[in-house]
Amino acid sequence: MNKIFEEVKALCQAAGAAAPALALTDSETRNRILLQMADTLLGEQTKILAANAQDLKSAEKNGVPAVMFDRLRLTPERIAAIADAIRALTKLPDPLCGQKTFTRPTGITVTEKKVPLGVVAIIYEARPNVTADAAALCVKSGNAVVLRGGKEAIESNRALVTALKQALIAEGLDPNAIGLIESTDRESANALMQMRGLVDVLIPRGGKGLIRSCVDNAKVPVIETGAGNCHVYIDKAADLDMALAVTVNAKCQRPSVCNAAETLLLHRDIAAEFLPRFYAATREWRLELHGDEATRAILPEALPATEEDYATEYNDYIMAVKVLESVEEAVAHIARYTTKHSECIITADREAADYFLGMVDAAAVYHNASTRFTDGGEFGLGAEIGISTQKLHARGPMGLTALTTVKYVVTGNGAVRK
Amino acid sequence: MNKIFEEVKALCQAAGAAAPALALTDSETRNRILLQMADTLLGEQTKILAANAQDLKSAEKNGVPAVMFDRLRLTPERIAAIADAIRALTKLPDPLCGQKTFTRPTGITVTEKKVPLGVVAIIYEARPNVTADAAALCVKSGNAVVLRGGKEAIESNRALVTALKQALIAEGLDPNAIGLIESTDRESANALMQMRGLVDVLIPRGGKGLIRSCVDNAKVPVIETGAGNCHVYIDKAADLDMALAVTVNAKCQRPSVCNAAETLLLHRDIAAEFLPRFYAATREWRLELHGDEATRAILPEALPATEEDYATEYNDYIMAVKVLESVEEAVAHIARYTTKHSECIITADREAADYFLGMVDAAAVYHNASTRFTDGGEFGLGAEIGISTQKLHARGPMGLTALTTVKYVVTGNGAVRK
Repeated sequence: MNKIFEEVKALCQAAGAAAPALALTDSETRNRILLQMADTLLGEQTKILAANAQDLKSAEKNGVPAVMFDRLRLTPERIAAIADAIRALTKLPDPLCGQKTFTRPTGITVTEKKVPLGVVAIIYEARPNVTADAAALCVKSGNAVVLRGGKEAIESNRALVTALKQALIAEGLDPNAIGLIESTDRESANALMQMRGLVDVLIPRGGKGLIRSCVDNAKVPVIETGAGNCHVYIDKAADLDMALAVTVNAKCQRPSVCNAAETLLLHRDIAAEFLPRFYAATREWRLELHGDEATRAILPEALPATEEDYATEYNDYIMAVKVLESVEEAVAHIARYTTKHSECIITADREAADYFLGMVDAAAVYHNASTRFTDGGEFGLGAEIGISTQKLHARGPMGLTALTTVKYVVTGNGAVRK
Repeated sequence: MNKIFEEVKALCQAAGAAAPALALTDSETRNRILLQMADTLLGEQTKILAANAQDLKSAEKNGVPAVMFDRLRLTPERIAAIADAIRALTKLPDPLCGQKTFTRPTGITVTEKKVPLGVVAIIYEARPNVTADAAALCVKSGNAVVLRGGKEAIESNRALVTALKQALIAEGLDPNAIGLIESTDRESANALMQMRGLVDVLIPRGGKGLIRSCVDNAKVPVIETGAGNCHVYIDKAADLDMALAVTVNAKCQRPSVCNAAETLLLHRDIAAEFLPRFYAATREWRLELHGDEATRAILPEALPATEEDYATEYNDYIMAVKVLESVEEAVAHIARYTTKHSECIITADREAADYFLGMVDAAAVYHNASTRFTDGGEFGLGAEIGISTQKLHARGPMGLTALTTVKYVVTGNGAVRK
């Protein structure tokens, strides 16, 4: 424990020491580093793939699930895609640009400058692409980064970070601005959460357990991401063809992600017509429905829903269902179970829609569109470091500006306060 | 404990239930409520002063310090000033105004709306003016508020909140949008820190102990405010007349506040000339200096400084002093001891100033001006809910926008994600 704590602390301190010089670079320099990062990834491709092969071998031996195995795997095509994504960042506006200056009658000039947060720490799972992605987003925004990836990807991450650091060195910057924690057990994550004063923000990217652990234990500032118990409410005034298309998309297009729908709420007036159609339309995925009594009276194939079902983010081909009397009841149900991620109403009634959009407290609220759109790319932010489900600092898809803060620079000619 | 927990929880729930309707009011309605709040405070003045007299009587009996006694006291003039400050808020722009809408090629329209945080909780000390102030800022920004003031002011707070609620009732809004926790022992503050899901942000306004306790124990989002171990560094290229005026102002004009300077750093080249002048200039306040050896060699009147001195926010007529070799050393000293509030350099050397302003990580960095300017009013924000010393969400003086977040409203015509 102590040794791991010291390793993590040393890495955070080194990142902190490297941060100010990176923070003061101009847009052109940071974009040049990004282009070099893309180049070094391609140049070191053989080493990276060899390291990845080691990870894959261990993963196979340890029998990791197929989906994790696939996420872990790098190929020349995937490395090329990562390099392309990094190059694309250079086309985005510099999040540190744009300052406001105002002079005050007291003789001071106040400039609100955009500055990087400083040291960004990211805890994530066995996805090597996140290593390059997160490092690139941090460089673009002038931040040092401390990466703590999943143990299954450690060899790949080490090779990737070695390649990425070369880009910093080539620009005369301290390579410690991209730090990788090599200890990958739980203790290193816990240590990172305690680095008060050394880590400016911790972003957990992973399952509910990880995020909960960060929120409960972290002494450093955390941005919560990704918990999504999302609802689709089909109002009595809904166009049922549209409702069917949107609900099937929200649930089945990619159920493993946070913006997929988990609970279907239906107005009683349309339940009998809609439910059998929905059931038929979802047979190709064998969607499992867990419904209340009213649901099961219409659709005997549904299993009985428990209280627990309505609170669960399945991330799977399972959906909770409930029949309600009104939009007010839908809003009340959502208020009780929402993780404040993405919530949707399908209706042709403008008044019902406005009530829902106004009263539901979530990062994104939808009218007649799939919850699956909650995403930095889909919203046009250009890049995404995660989807915040908290209200402070950043809410919803977080672009580059979420990695910045402000600093007031005050100048005077000996100005004093009266 | 359990009873207090339940009281706090019930208040937070009631505030949460009242919040959405308040959030959806327009600017005019909220300004009308503010004008009525000012009116009801004046209308209920007799009751408020009677309640305050009770608090003052208890305070006298309990022998509270003179400074606290003065802060606790309300007078007709002070109530009029509070009412004026509330009326002045109606002249400020609505922080919920200004939304961005963009349409995407996928057929969705995304509107980034400004919305209130929801339920704002504030823990503060025995200053009844904060009760009215905080409630007014929350109403202006569409937030419900849960107030937990110091026990010495409980009678005053009760009378104030009773008056303020009338303004909500007059507009047909739920008066629970302004909640006062009547239990004033430590347990009620601790309970408030645990109200995860019910409190959207907790702002502690008070001493270091309170803020630390919130940061360590809170399960709700916290905005840290007010810790200020501020430094003034006098460079070798400083105009010493200017340096004297600024340093005396930063230290002695109002030493009890967070933006007052606590440590004086001096370049060796000017120390021998500056220190005796500074000492002479501060005799009227009998400023006590705690210096390192170099300081005491020049100024034998200085007491020896310990490591502890450099880390202390005295909030008093005491100042730590250290003689240094360079601006780099000053930046390193500040990096070690700063609370990232306000830091100042006095110099005529543009390069040294730029280095200092760029490298020092603080909410406000000063060149040739007193740290005492770090303040919402002085920066022109119009109103201030506190001074944030964190980087996430809000940094430095927090105006009304710090009490808001965003919500993405997405509309489509059955849009689904490919």
